[in-house]
Amino acid sequence: MPQDIFDKIMMLAKRRGFIYPSFEIYGGVAGFYDYGPLGTQLKNNIENLWRKYYLLKDNCAEINTPTITLYDVLKASGHVDEFTDLTIDCKKCKQSFKLEALVEKDDPEKAVKEYKVKCPNCNEILKNPYPVNLMFSTKIGFGNSRDAFLRPETAQGIFTNFHLLYRFAREKLPFGIVQIGKGYRNEISPRQGTIRQREFNMAEAEVFFDPKDKSHPNFDSIKDKTLFLFDNNREMKLTVEKAVKDAVVNNEALAYYMCLTQEFLLDVGIDQKKFRFRKHGDDELAHYATECWDAELYSDRFGWVECVGIADRSAYDLESHIESSGNDMYSIRKFDKPKSVKVKKIVANMSKLGPFFKNKAGKIKDLLEKIDVQKNKEIILNIEGKKTKIPNDCYKIVETEEIIKGERFVPHVIEPSYGIDRILYMILEHSYYEFKKRDEEYHVLRLNPVVSPIKVGIFPLISDENLINIAKKIDSDLRSSGISTYYDKAGTIGRRYARMDEIGTPFCITVDHDSIIDDAVTIRYRDTTKQERVKIKEVIKFIKLKLN
Amino acid sequence: MPQDIFDKIMMLAKRRGFIYPSFEIYGGVAGFYDYGPLGTQLKNNIENLWRKYYLLKDNCAEINTPTITLYDVLKASGHVDEFTDLTIDCKKCKQSFKLEALVEKDDPEKAVKEYKVKCPNCNEILKNPYPVNLMFSTKIGFGNSRDAFLRPETAQGIFTNFHLLYRFAREKLPFGIVQIGKGYRNEISPRQGTIRQREFNMAEAEVFFDPKDKSHPNFDSIKDKTLFLFDNNREMKLTVEKAVKDAVVNNEALAYYMCLTQEFLLDVGIDQKKFRFRKHGDDELAHYATECWDAELYSDRFGWVECVGIADRSAYDLESHIESSGNDMYSIRKFDKPKSVKVKKIVANMSKLGPFFKNKAGKIKDLLEKIDVQKNKEIILNIEGKKTKIPNDCYKIVETEEIIKGERFVPHVIEPSYGIDRILYMILEHSYYEFKKRDEEYHVLRLNPVVSPIKVGIFPLISDENLINIAKKIDSDLRSSGISTYYDKAGTIGRRYARMDEIGTPFCITVDHDSIIDDAVTIRYRDTTKQERVKIKEVIKFIKLKLN
Repeated sequence: MPQDIFDKIMMLAKRRGFIYPSFEIYGGVAGFYDYGPLGTQLKNNIENLWRKYYLLKDNCAEINTPTITLYDVLKASGHVDEFTDLTIDCKKCKQSFKLEALVEKDDPEKAVKEYKVKCPNCNEILKNPYPVNLMFSTKIGFGNSRDAFLRPETAQGIFTNFHLLYRFAREKLPFGIVQIGKGYRNEISPRQGTIRQREFNMAEAEVFFDPKDKSHPNFDSIKDKTLFLFDNNREMKLTVEKAVKDAVVNNEALAYYMCLTQEFLLDVGIDQKKFRFRKHGDDELAHYATECWDAELYSDRFGWVECVGIADRSAYDLESHIESSGNDMYSIRKFDKPKSVKVKKIVANMSKLGPFFKNKAGKIKDLLEKIDVQKNKEIILNIEGKKTKIPNDCYKIVETEEIIKGERFVPHVIEPSYGIDRILYMILEHSYYEFKKRDEEYHVLRLNPVVSPIKVGIFPLISDENLINIAKKIDSDLRSSGISTYYDKAGTIGRRYARMDEIGTPFCITVDHDSIIDDAVTIRYRDTTKQERVKIKEVIKFIKLKLN
Repeated sequence: MPQDIFDKIMMLAKRRGFIYPSFEIYGGVAGFYDYGPLGTQLKNNIENLWRKYYLLKDNCAEINTPTITLYDVLKASGHVDEFTDLTIDCKKCKQSFKLEALVEKDDPEKAVKEYKVKCPNCNEILKNPYPVNLMFSTKIGFGNSRDAFLRPETAQGIFTNFHLLYRFAREKLPFGIVQIGKGYRNEISPRQGTIRQREFNMAEAEVFFDPKDKSHPNFDSIKDKTLFLFDNNREMKLTVEKAVKDAVVNNEALAYYMCLTQEFLLDVGIDQKKFRFRKHGDDELAHYATECWDAELYSDRFGWVECVGIADRSAYDLESHIESSGNDMYSIRKFDKPKSVKVKKIVANMSKLGPFFKNKAGKIKDLLEKIDVQKNKEIILNIEGKKTKIPNDCYKIVETEEIIKGERFVPHVIEPSYGIDRILYMILEHSYYEFKKRDEEYHVLRLNPVVSPIKVGIFPLISDENLINIAKKIDSDLRSSGISTYYDKAGTIGRRYARMDEIGTPFCITVDHDSIIDDAVTIRYRDTTKQERVKIKEVIKFIKLKLN
């Protein structure tokens, strides 16, 4: 079978230490991959560049929450009920399949009844598809344990802290919070290599806006840039400003983060010709989204692949958590001057609440008095993990006159959500070049130096102690400046260049006999193979300049 | 109840955005914490400094493997059988407790039988402790699913890739591989705040040595440094060299990584007076370790706490995986010249193997012929996740004469394993200072600038547009240089300094009216509160210099 680029990249990735299949010595498991030394550096570099865009340029703040997530959180967010796929089991060979992958019809459930769908493994006729939840489940503690899942997205860790993060942002909108970390999706039968993993790396930003004002403070600085859009099978190049004005993109905030995403992806090494934004149709929107644009990247084997989703999640998540937890997760839109208004309030009746709930009564009183009366009929609170109905006679609703400084509202959320593993794979594919050199296959990864795992290869021309000492000194000086290097004294210079070209190292330094006399070395560029003589004492400055 | 330092730090941590209790809006769960914006930056800074020590100084390589780990891996590593605690359930209130935490006797099982151990919650007498495995378990896939756990340590992801990583290191020992990421331990009833978490952040290095040569190439550069040791209740200050010579520490490699650990911890902001290395007694060694030193850090509430363990894991893990997987995970010690030796080899008998194993026969042949004959009597191979006994007549053992270039051996492992969350907490505690200032509580975190979440606070003295413009320009220039800042124009200057002192920001820049005339700003130092006038165009260079 002829190899395609995917095969070639995966072979290179394994041979040179970018990507290994996980648990290979125990037979492997589909959907799990390890990053080897070079893959991990590449991944770290991608994430750190992402941080520059989101933390330093856009002024978001980063948080870090557990991967194990309490049932209550994911019940409220809708994932317990909605994060499902239809699966179908083969009675004969005991394999399970994702129905959608077997039947390419609009209504695969109907198709199973009408056509004979066969097991791709043993040809048995398959029957009775059923939905499975795609979250990995586990239990916290023993005995009286609590149900939990591995998070399907990092976003919920941000939403459940909204009230604290809003305080951190000094109660001003908009503000953005990001999280970089693992996400999990127990795919039924993943078959697309690193594109569809069961444990994956994501980088997500949740940016909170006043629903009445989805403008972005930095919009002016990017409004003239061109977005590469694809909507209803039509390619469009529009400026950010025009995309909003023509209502192709719903609001400034969404368009701003699309532009930031496009700039990041092109900066990180994605080929512009293999990049586009595609708008979700109404039928493919996630349960929480009102509008979503995918940054799609093109792969020879997989076609256009969603690598970033930029969604307007509206107030969906915060409203869900307010309703499920009773917690105050509102923002305040200040009035020009305070107003006097009539408000309905819950006042706890401690003479009923006390005997009924004993030592929990105080806590329940606090929760009760925070509830937004309009939204609740029967009051059910979450007390130490248990849904608890509060009897009617434990409280009364009173109307009072109050001076208020502003009106409360639930912020909307714009979410750019990045699949780091997919982007990493696409970077490899888009920077992979092969050709023949003296009858041998020659591979070059033309990575952007910013993300190259190794920045500089350092070689003494021959195994002479004087040259080795100079080379090692340069090596250690570069490392002390935080620049990753690879010292190599084995094989011909050509072979050593080839090793570095194959892993995307942008610069190679060779120390030769002249170096002893002229205190200079030869620096060779990966992409042009041109060489330049540079003074040893200038090397660090020279490399740093090239890297910025 | 008077607050101790722990309480005060946790309050500060929550108020200012370092640490939040996870899932708080749903009642919280013991053993889970979120890092807020400042906590995450602090954590990232700690990990990046750690990388400088291990990747750039010690030349290790970093990898990144899944947190979900196949049953087979953790069965082989001993965790399925050994990673347990005794638990005891209360029949009345349904709570579970870790037996060791209730009974401070050498033999807590005996104690339960002899004394009446009462439930600390409801006073019921507790009976029948039983061991529980502390790994979180889950299942991969549906139908024919596979058992898995959340990893209890990152190390196994390194061991299972040894053969690939050895190739990456060009088959030379010693070489080190690190991993930074999540570890999980389903504690029965964690009660020590951030010190004992169920999901935690670790940084581990596995450094592979020839068991006959546990010297470290950089040993000379650190041999005269002083180690702070504690063994058999005795404090000792010894040079690294003397510690090895006197056999206080077993070998150079172990001593080298102890020294690296000590330097990292003091650099990251640990108080030297609250630091020591304590040697494990034989009864407390983990199932895989032959010698272990803990870097213990002192906390007011918790006493001496293990924050780093530096263990000699010998060949335990690689041998276990060789035995369970049949994979070749040996190193070669080259002879000066090749030798002729007699070797026993397994030769597969395809006429038996073929009919018996059908399409798996070829794979089994490959595995069989890799096995080290001496070590195996009954041959059991791991075929696609199933332990499979190979019938005797499927192979024969033949003795042949071979020319070999070296002898095979299983490398030994020295493992420094860091608990990042514990170190982070200790840094906060060791840098926390409080005093009265104008009758108000005043808090300063004297963090090492390298780890401070925010490096520079930037204030226009008053809300004047000219001053604001200058301040914003400095702010954005610093951010473009990768320096984290906090721009603040609200409140008195004293109040703004106080905010920055409390989160450990080392430098504050104030733009005043003179700035317009002399193009200079005032830089104020957190720890001395001294101030200095610096030209605006020198600010970035000035701050960068202070940070290095």
